[in-house]
Amino acid sequence: MAKQTVRILGIDPGSRSTGFGVVDWHGREPVYVASGCITTIAGDELAGRVGIIVEHIGEIIETYRPNEAAVEKVFVNVNPAATLMLGQARGAAVAALVLRGLPVYEYTALQVKQSMVGKGKAAKEQVQHMVVQMLGLSGTPQADAADGLAVAISHGLRFHGLAGKMGGLALRGGRLRP
Amino acid sequence: MAKQTVRILGIDPGSRSTGFGVVDWHGREPVYVASGCITTIAGDELAGRVGIIVEHIGEIIETYRPNEAAVEKVFVNVNPAATLMLGQARGAAVAALVLRGLPVYEYTALQVKQSMVGKGKAAKEQVQHMVVQMLGLSGTPQADAADGLAVAISHGLRFHGLAGKMGGLALRGGRLRP
Repeated sequence: MAKQTVRILGIDPGSRSTGFGVVDWHGREPVYVASGCITTIAGDELAGRVGIIVEHIGEIIETYRPNEAAVEKVFVNVNPAATLMLGQARGAAVAALVLRGLPVYEYTALQVKQSMVGKGKAAKEQVQHMVVQMLGLSGTPQADAADGLAVAISHGLRFHGLAGKMGGLALRGGRLRP
Repeated sequence: MAKQTVRILGIDPGSRSTGFGVVDWHGREPVYVASGCITTIAGDELAGRVGIIVEHIGEIIETYRPNEAAVEKVFVNVNPAATLMLGQARGAAVAALVLRGLPVYEYTALQVKQSMVGKGKAAKEQVQHMVVQMLGLSGTPQADAADGLAVAISHGLRFHGLAGKMGGLALRGGRLRP
């Protein structure tokens, strides 16, 4: 039986920079496709920032043609201005996904950490380490790109099963439940 | 000389409901075209809420074919969750505008109040009253719709001059400057 490949686009929106990662879920194995970071111009007007996000996500979708999208449900309460900017970036990113007809799944940072490291209080570095391990990367991707890959992998684990090569990492029942 | 008509779409994004107003700026006179309110489903997932905003703004643009868009730069610091939702709604709305190639202008609530009532500390009701007066409406539109119309009129005043019928309302120099 031929393995079915599902291509997942993971997005980690931030107030200044939006990370993305594209992962193929080939059977039960995650395969790295692409990752990167969309950076908006600080101090630029809203339309300019939204335009950059929407345009680049559009290009990513056209280039890699993902089947599903996973977005990190980040929540920052540091300061209202940053929270508003984060919200705007998320709204723009999800608009770009929805407009291309992609099904969008949301995961909290806690859910991503739990699925990647096995505990919700994991450090960001542990998550990045697991991204490198799971995808067999030769180097560590940029932090935002790694976060985009992490949310894509989390969605893959949740929807398309555990990768065979993950060895000791067992998926506990309900760990990924919202 | 024929008067040039500019059609302005004003958007007032909110965490739950997004008001819109379409106004024609015919020469120096604002003429009411349409207004209303896009309400998202409370508790719906982000993709659903963003989808409703993007879809409806797309329909409004297709139906009324505005030339310019004005968006209220609202800022709420009540609670981080509401601020995030507001940001998402703004990001989605601006994405819909940018994707249709509309030039987007931003105005703070203070600027809208100043241009409508002549002072930044005006009550919401005073702004709504001026919307009714300036457009010669027979009834008072829904609060969110009135806010959408107000930001459209503010932009018109700023870019396309003062309406002749505004009588006593004098545009003071620099009042609308960002």
